[in-house]
Amino acid sequence: MAEPFVTSSAEQPLDVINVFDLEEAAKEVIPQGAYGYISSGAQDLYTIRENIKAFNHKLVAPRVLQDISFPADMHVDFMGHRLTSPLIMAPVAAHKLANTQGEVATARGVAKHGTIFTISSFASETYEAQAAVRAGQPQWFQLYQSKDDKATKQMLDVAKQNGAEVIVLTADATVGGYREADKRNHFTFPVGLPIVPYEDGQDRTMDAVYKSAKQALSPHDIAFIKDYSGLPVYVKGVQTAADAEVAIRAGADGIWVSNHGGRQLDGGVASFDALQVVAKQVAHRVPIVFDSGVRRGMHVFKALASGADLVAIGRPVIYGLALGGSQGVEAVFEELENELLIAMQLTGTHDIGEIKRTQLIDNRYAD
Amino acid sequence: MAEPFVTSSAEQPLDVINVFDLEEAAKEVIPQGAYGYISSGAQDLYTIRENIKAFNHKLVAPRVLQDISFPADMHVDFMGHRLTSPLIMAPVAAHKLANTQGEVATARGVAKHGTIFTISSFASETYEAQAAVRAGQPQWFQLYQSKDDKATKQMLDVAKQNGAEVIVLTADATVGGYREADKRNHFTFPVGLPIVPYEDGQDRTMDAVYKSAKQALSPHDIAFIKDYSGLPVYVKGVQTAADAEVAIRAGADGIWVSNHGGRQLDGGVASFDALQVVAKQVAHRVPIVFDSGVRRGMHVFKALASGADLVAIGRPVIYGLALGGSQGVEAVFEELENELLIAMQLTGTHDIGEIKRTQLIDNRYAD
Amino acid sequence: MAEPFVTSSAEQPLDVINVFDLEEAAKEVIPQGAYGYISSGAQDLYTIRENIKAFNHKLVAPRVLQDISFPADMHVDFMGHRLTSPLIMAPVAAHKLANTQGEVATARGVAKHGTIFTISSFASETYEAQAAVRAGQPQWFQLYQSKDDKATKQMLDVAKQNGAEVIVLTADATVGGYREADKRNHFTFPVGLPIVPYEDGQDRTMDAVYKSAKQALSPHDIAFIKDYSGLPVYVKGVQTAADAEVAIRAGADGIWVSNHGGRQLDGGVASFDALQVVAKQVAHRVPIVFDSGVRRGMHVFKALASGADLVAIGRPVIYGLALGGSQGVEAVFEELENELLIAMQLTGTHDIGEIKRTQLIDNRYAD
Amino acid sequence: MAEPFVTSSAEQPLDVINVFDLEEAAKEVIPQGAYGYISSGAQDLYTIRENIKAFNHKLVAPRVLQDISFPADMHVDFMGHRLTSPLIMAPVAAHKLANTQGEVATARGVAKHGTIFTISSFASETYEAQAAVRAGQPQWFQLYQSKDDKATKQMLDVAKQNGAEVIVLTADATVGGYREADKRNHFTFPVGLPIVPYEDGQDRTMDAVYKSAKQALSPHDIAFIKDYSGLPVYVKGVQTAADAEVAIRAGADGIWVSNHGGRQLDGGVASFDALQVVAKQVAHRVPIVFDSGVRRGMHVFKALASGADLVAIGRPVIYGLALGGSQGVEAVFEELENELLIAMQLTGTHDIGEIKRTQLIDNRYAD
Repeated sequence: MAEPFVTSSAEQPLDVINVFDLEEAAKEVIPQGAYGYISSGAQDLYTIRENIKAFNHKLVAPRVLQDISFPADMHVDFMGHRLTSPLIMAPVAAHKLANTQGEVATARGVAKHGTIFTISSFASETYEAQAAVRAGQPQWFQLYQSKDDKATKQMLDVAKQNGAEVIVLTADATVGGYREADKRNHFTFPVGLPIVPYEDGQDRTMDAVYKSAKQALSPHDIAFIKDYSGLPVYVKGVQTAADAEVAIRAGADGIWVSNHGGRQLDGGVASFDALQVVAKQVAHRVPIVFDSGVRRGMHVFKALASGADLVAIGRPVIYGLALGGSQGVEAVFEELENELLIAMQLTGTHDIGEIKRTQLIDNRYAD
Repeated sequence: MAEPFVTSSAEQPLDVINVFDLEEAAKEVIPQGAYGYISSGAQDLYTIRENIKAFNHKLVAPRVLQDISFPADMHVDFMGHRLTSPLIMAPVAAHKLANTQGEVATARGVAKHGTIFTISSFASETYEAQAAVRAGQPQWFQLYQSKDDKATKQMLDVAKQNGAEVIVLTADATVGGYREADKRNHFTFPVGLPIVPYEDGQDRTMDAVYKSAKQALSPHDIAFIKDYSGLPVYVKGVQTAADAEVAIRAGADGIWVSNHGGRQLDGGVASFDALQVVAKQVAHRVPIVFDSGVRRGMHVFKALASGADLVAIGRPVIYGLALGGSQGVEAVFEELENELLIAMQLTGTHDIGEIKRTQLIDNRYAD
Repeated sequence: MAEPFVTSSAEQPLDVINVFDLEEAAKEVIPQGAYGYISSGAQDLYTIRENIKAFNHKLVAPRVLQDISFPADMHVDFMGHRLTSPLIMAPVAAHKLANTQGEVATARGVAKHGTIFTISSFASETYEAQAAVRAGQPQWFQLYQSKDDKATKQMLDVAKQNGAEVIVLTADATVGGYREADKRNHFTFPVGLPIVPYEDGQDRTMDAVYKSAKQALSPHDIAFIKDYSGLPVYVKGVQTAADAEVAIRAGADGIWVSNHGGRQLDGGVASFDALQVVAKQVAHRVPIVFDSGVRRGMHVFKALASGADLVAIGRPVIYGLALGGSQGVEAVFEELENELLIAMQLTGTHDIGEIKRTQLIDNRYAD
Repeated sequence: MAEPFVTSSAEQPLDVINVFDLEEAAKEVIPQGAYGYISSGAQDLYTIRENIKAFNHKLVAPRVLQDISFPADMHVDFMGHRLTSPLIMAPVAAHKLANTQGEVATARGVAKHGTIFTISSFASETYEAQAAVRAGQPQWFQLYQSKDDKATKQMLDVAKQNGAEVIVLTADATVGGYREADKRNHFTFPVGLPIVPYEDGQDRTMDAVYKSAKQALSPHDIAFIKDYSGLPVYVKGVQTAADAEVAIRAGADGIWVSNHGGRQLDGGVASFDALQVVAKQVAHRVPIVFDSGVRRGMHVFKALASGADLVAIGRPVIYGLALGGSQGVEAVFEELENELLIAMQLTGTHDIGEIKRTQLIDNRYAD
């Protein structure tokens, strides 16, 4: 427990063939406990596996003769920003587990790439340091609300002062998922969590950290955060039509469909399967962000065609961070966007709007 | 055959990550023949495997923003008792195969945990010794009826005198299942079965033991047992709507859905799949107990949401007994209940009643 | 090619745990080429594998409280004979590949067991020798019709003179299936085929042997055989409702549903799946015999519940023959019947008639 | 990069058991980079695997008593030619990767076999040399259109002067698929591509080669090619009803259903599954050619029964070329046709027309 935590400090260009490879490579440079924390999921890993498999529940019928000059246009206009693509950075705790440079390197890589960076409440770096390297690119704040409203307000103040444009309220992690890798590794956070006033983080188990946040979240919290911060609030962790409706009626400005990367409830639906149900209910009233299981440009394509407006990635970026620092982060976004561009060409879609209007094919042979 | 039977005599705290692990560990401390008897199932093991896989035939859609303070309330009020949770102990033959302390240790652990213990007709310990350690906690008696009514009455007398609150009539084992592990191991019971007057047990094959009980069970037996004992009778082994109806009309006070842990008929439906059909037929007229395949808190959740009132576990407890004696027994209940509590929090359910009202999602991709 | 063919000559009691085991054991005592010929199937082995897997396309819901004394009654009355069970012996070519005693040992074992033996056109023993050991038990003749009517009549004469009660016209093997094991092993029959006047067999490939029989079979052949022999004609290899109708209208006295054990067309339906379609069309107008894939008592049960009147087994008996001669043959029938009896007890069925009226459950999770 | 490219130069008879075997054997005689280019597919290889698995989505119910003399008649009359069978040669780039004899050997083998040879734009041999060995057998030209109309016209001139009867416009490869094997092997073409005026090929990556062709294909290109060449135009790579309709309305004389052997878009439908949808839309207005995944005579059968008029094979022929030169090419066609003949006999189909009218059975158990 007392031995010093030594992880990667890489900063170098990264040659990516696919982001699955990065997971294997990152395992070699991240200490076992930290790697287990980052990579694993809840219990029998059913839902984490399904998150990826579920993209084959729907197939794309390629169109031809669509008169498309490569590369197609994948930019997205969102809240006044022109994003390089619909890909954005998901909130992920404690980047210093993967690279001593931590969130600063990630934020810099994502900024250079030209898209949204979501700062986690459980970041291992201060809000200010992350905001400082954003170079004008949009930045959101993911909130683990405190049991104590004063502490919550303190976090919102910091976020607002540092330019957060959206508050992302995580609603699916009011207790830690049952993650067996962490139990087997006796994992405690080897780094501090400076943003949350209610939790030091250092040498604490993930369970303890999660339980120190607020469990009894309710729709009222949306209004509370919105009123206090004056910022739009997105609710993250929505997987049902009912909750999407509740959240929108309670004032949510966006719905973030996610099952926390399969880290919380095992035996729940795949995030991609949930997306289709939620999107039908939301019916374009507010934007939808999607995450959990995205590993391919084609996954991005299918998520957009299923109702997502933005697609967030987490683990692949952290592996890129471990292997190449901010340059590794950039390389991951470039890889997935290159895959997306090829998919656009081969499916005959000129721009993101056309992807969204694509009718996917139900795959009755999927298992 | 004549070599003395030596099994575990452990009595120690048990650190459980999941109950699947216990099976592997228990294999190391239980002699091969006894382990085969405990762990295995009928023929090609299709139904025993499906028992566990079937829980993924239904998925749970997690709800958020439900204002739940951890831990939620999982207690159950049943027949005048306040049980810690819906988990109870299933009848299992010959606990002395797993631990020299036998049923006394199991009964003590379960009592300490605060839930129902079901004493098996084929226990390797006397009824009195098991009843003696129950410390006020409820205790039921599982009956393998005798061909001879006198012997049946003798067993019922003992159960009643020792405080049994329910008679559980096993109806799905009127002959032994075709269990190949036992045949390969030339397994005979190395311990006696003191409760049944019609069968010594010692050095007898399981087939012989089963055949010495009554084969030609009929609905009349329910009335016979009920009239003689004056106790409520639950029929165990029901897997069809038709049999649930027959049993209720014949006076059954409860229906126990089970396929005997996949030990009897191979090529039959998974117990969890049967539960949904049976529950629809029972329609809350009598309580439903469910077993076969329960290895996760989420399995308990899904069984409750499918119509079960109580959920019984067997093999996992016996593995806990082998590894830790009465403390191992307690640890197994604690593990599954901890998993259940986390599942309740993450699915947004405040109490057992809410679980029961949860709508599960049909998983069309299950295989 | 010229080295002498040496195979098993075993004659001994056989302890059977399941008939799958026998396949492995038989592989050790039968020469590779002969074993490949017996055990293998067509091309990618898709249909041969599906033949067995298909039994899980339907499940049985066990009934309880049915007042059944073990053992239930599994006898069948068929064409004036009281058979021990619905199990009969399928026609199989060249038993001398598996045991030097050949068909005589098989016929003796089956007779002792009390059921129908089907003599193959491609037997490695004379008709007379096989008929001689039948001891009053019924005996049928499977016919590979000749291109030359005279040769066909000659075979029918021999069969009739030796007491055949049914002529089984094989219709699904008018050319050899594409069996790759035989090609890899350069397999030729190391034994002669004395029954067919048009083919010696010795040192001939299976392809050559099949092509020497009549390819252009038509419904007229049914009438021809029936008229000439005066015996009932069963058409073997029927897998569609259309062909069942054609055969019945052409005078067939029985329909034998089979895909030749997966040895002929790969990519066709499993025999058990075909049975249900055919049985619906036949609608009890003539008896149905079923084979292909039967390895368990429960398979027999499910076939009966799907419309079969008799269930034929082939490969398992040949493996029994290889390992134990006539005693091995008996042991295989005993094993499957014991499994059937247990299945009857555990499903709550008193006799074969009740099995036939059992409603199977569609298994939507089968793959 | 500078080391000389050495591949097989075999010219010998080839004994084929099935064409899957050839893939393994060819791997031994083709250099790794070239083998990777030939054998592999896009990204996760989902679609390339599904291409083969999809043939089991439909099953054939064998008919019997159909009065068929072996062999049945599998010839096809097409555009004034009597083809040996519905099997034709698909366009495949750079045969010199597999055999130093290149396309000349393939063209000779296919001519000898008596069917259509499709010359690829990316051939490693001149058009003239390939056309010279066709010996009167029909020959088609597959076109990768140029960004520059002049270059396109130049290719069409050469094709027409050398006797091309059909122009096959590839529409599904307007950018290279994301093929990871090529990236891992740093594969560049070690041979030149003499037919395309706009691309040398030598030492170029496949990506570069593909991007040098025209990306922005549209329906107008069909008319352009048709008008200029005066030849019928088939559009290759159609996988949707919508595109079939667009192509026919734009003047296409044939539809070639293909997903480029799973080399382009991963996560798209299997080609065989697309065939059924496309064929319904085409409704016999123009001929349909089918490729992608054909490895068995039964695959040919099922494609014909699903609406194909001709079935093209690629990789298996290239493996035959690697292992046996022109004789290997012939052996591959002979093998698949022998398998088709056996399938015709065993399914009871007299000729190709009957195959086309065969009703396939939906396989609900396929996964």
